[in-house]
Amino acid sequence: MTEPRRRQIIEADLTWTGMQFEPGVQVEVDDTGRITRVGTLHTKATTRLTGQALLPGFVNAHSHAFQRGLRGRGERFPDGAGSFWSWREAMYALVNRLDAKSLFDLSVQAFQEMRSTGITTVGEFHYLHHLSDEDRFVFDTVVLDAARAVGIRIALLQTYYRTGGCGLPATGGQRRFLSTSLEGYWSQVDRLELTLDPTRESLGIAAHSLRAVPPDEVEQLHAESVRRGRPFHIHLEEQVQEVADCLDAYDQRPMTLLLDRLSTMENVTAVHCTHTDPTELTAFIDRGGSVSLCPLTEANLGDGIPPLGEISTTLRGVELCLGTDSNARIAMMEEMRGLEYAQRLKAERRGIFRDEDGTVARRLLRIATQGGARSLGVASGEIRPGLWADFAVVDMAAPILAGADPDTLLDSIVFGADPSVVTRTAVGGIWDR
Amino acid sequence: MTEPRRRQIIEADLTWTGMQFEPGVQVEVDDTGRITRVGTLHTKATTRLTGQALLPGFVNAHSHAFQRGLRGRGERFPDGAGSFWSWREAMYALVNRLDAKSLFDLSVQAFQEMRSTGITTVGEFHYLHHLSDEDRFVFDTVVLDAARAVGIRIALLQTYYRTGGCGLPATGGQRRFLSTSLEGYWSQVDRLELTLDPTRESLGIAAHSLRAVPPDEVEQLHAESVRRGRPFHIHLEEQVQEVADCLDAYDQRPMTLLLDRLSTMENVTAVHCTHTDPTELTAFIDRGGSVSLCPLTEANLGDGIPPLGEISTTLRGVELCLGTDSNARIAMMEEMRGLEYAQRLKAERRGIFRDEDGTVARRLLRIATQGGARSLGVASGEIRPGLWADFAVVDMAAPILAGADPDTLLDSIVFGADPSVVTRTAVGGIWDR
Repeated sequence: MTEPRRRQIIEADLTWTGMQFEPGVQVEVDDTGRITRVGTLHTKATTRLTGQALLPGFVNAHSHAFQRGLRGRGERFPDGAGSFWSWREAMYALVNRLDAKSLFDLSVQAFQEMRSTGITTVGEFHYLHHLSDEDRFVFDTVVLDAARAVGIRIALLQTYYRTGGCGLPATGGQRRFLSTSLEGYWSQVDRLELTLDPTRESLGIAAHSLRAVPPDEVEQLHAESVRRGRPFHIHLEEQVQEVADCLDAYDQRPMTLLLDRLSTMENVTAVHCTHTDPTELTAFIDRGGSVSLCPLTEANLGDGIPPLGEISTTLRGVELCLGTDSNARIAMMEEMRGLEYAQRLKAERRGIFRDEDGTVARRLLRIATQGGARSLGVASGEIRPGLWADFAVVDMAAPILAGADPDTLLDSIVFGADPSVVTRTAVGGIWDR
Repeated sequence: MTEPRRRQIIEADLTWTGMQFEPGVQVEVDDTGRITRVGTLHTKATTRLTGQALLPGFVNAHSHAFQRGLRGRGERFPDGAGSFWSWREAMYALVNRLDAKSLFDLSVQAFQEMRSTGITTVGEFHYLHHLSDEDRFVFDTVVLDAARAVGIRIALLQTYYRTGGCGLPATGGQRRFLSTSLEGYWSQVDRLELTLDPTRESLGIAAHSLRAVPPDEVEQLHAESVRRGRPFHIHLEEQVQEVADCLDAYDQRPMTLLLDRLSTMENVTAVHCTHTDPTELTAFIDRGGSVSLCPLTEANLGDGIPPLGEISTTLRGVELCLGTDSNARIAMMEEMRGLEYAQRLKAERRGIFRDEDGTVARRLLRIATQGGARSLGVASGEIRPGLWADFAVVDMAAPILAGADPDTLLDSIVFGADPSVVTRTAVGGIWDR
């Protein structure tokens, strides 16, 4: 990742220009890592990608990098069927084992796998802050250092965590997540801001969930995130139990509470919304909210199928985004089709996330790129002047893609392929190979 | 595929021996392509697979190879949501375009992709028989030739197709599927039998469905399949409409009809069973029947989620098998987790297909290997003396598998990986590279 930034003219055989793949498109990138021009530039390409297609890099809107350490674990059920809650125990056990070295290694492993599979931005929902005592935040820079080592663009969603359940103290592994005051949290945010490389790093504000943050503090965190012009993320209604606990403790469902208390939804991303009431979900989106879906994790954890099919035709595509969440598997193609397929299985019909022309793959790509960029407040997700030069390059000669033509290539990638078709990526114009 | 068969001693760093991966296991293969011994043989390996793990090759119990030509197609819905039936129109359009050359090319493409992703046996549910008029069967040898060219083991499920719907004449593209009499069908089966290479090819009997074959003929086909000791396959209850049509025409649901009329279920595989009544499904399995699931195709086509979670704990694992069906995507790892994940999403709990020890990955592997071998009547699916030497080799150094140990490697492959971890395969002892 030590290659210096330089001005480039990139030309692939095909370039995704937002609605289609086009031949003969040149992409000019300046030495700050931004795209400056896109089109027929009548000049010689400095980076000629023969037999390759150029796409915007995927934006992973929701990740917990350290959970990469659980891949292939927690899939045994000697005492009968498991649940999200039994999985969480395995996750807490991992949390208790981690130190700075092992957290760095796992984070590098996750970020490296993301980048090599076409993900150029990660929204890291970071709540594992402390080695032992609360309020030390020694792990925050560990995660940033891992992203730097890999050269992936990161939006660090610095996460506030106050209670172990609605109104309950944090216990055991949860103590590694804990902030004891909003003041301490914001001091750490201020400290982190000073260390960021603005060409590749940004900060977002996150309240872990309404299990872990009281409503008043959710409201205060969000108000400050608006004042600072930062995105605001929160886990929401992934589990029936979480909705019930919130009703018990605060007499409102989590989404009702957000809709009641937050001044705007324009900077808000609600993660999961598996058990959200469709009317409330529509209201949230109508007021500008984003929903982050994590289809593979939601399937693995047995969360359920979110009520999106019912409202899918009212959406434009950028209100939704995708995350690899637990990183049990890292594969944006599989997340894209997983989003569509869960809804097909539920509704017993096809073509749920259609765009204005009825094309599913284009809509899913928009969700996996522009949707994530909007959610994280990052200038990426499209190949367009002014945005960062973040790209995924696909090998058109891959046997998986045999038979595709420029008109069906995207459909083949989204429905038929896996990350093995990705040959290289660029983040801010810097190639990984 | 011209390498001669020879006696080999294969030793990988880890070998799957049925319940676990074990180091130091040697597998002896004789010059007929069968496994003769497995264990610590105190001899020098002739094929040393360093840094690799040896698994039984996957058995793909249900494929329509020619549908590989639809990958990335039929995913646009300008007129609103689609269905199985609108997809079928796109499939018929492809059927009408194919000639011997293009069918051969597509079949090679599909079989090659299967083999390179670890599938060593394909059950080809073959109903596209004719170039123009019925009863010529010119395409049967085309498909067999394609399998030979790739060197994949094939069970050709020679499919009888008589009507275009319950009691309706076949029309359009359906004429390419048609048999006009049972006699003509069995004559063709007899002709094909004479051409088979018994070390790599076998025949099964299939009735397309109760849409396409009247109940009396299903019964006669099955009786003859029993007499000949051949497996019998049939598409069953994939669509609500199919169940309704069968009820209208014959006063029974398709599964009721099978249970009523067939003398044994021991050689019967019902494909899909998406809308089968759970009590009937249990009765079918109790009498020895196999169920072939095709999770990615069933999701893509919006079929629905079969009622397996409800009865999963009564199953041993070999009553179920997996197929890539439409070949829109070819990836057995994704089929395995797709089977489990659809049930998790439906039941909102984890660990549906547990084996006797509560391990999901082992149960899913058994379904993807032994289950298919049982369904197709092929001596494969395990690394065990007497069976064909059909293997998939996995690169343990693949970044996707980083962090796995011998105890969790299978879980990582099934839940975390894709076919890119497969480095080579053997069919009857003959390696692809």
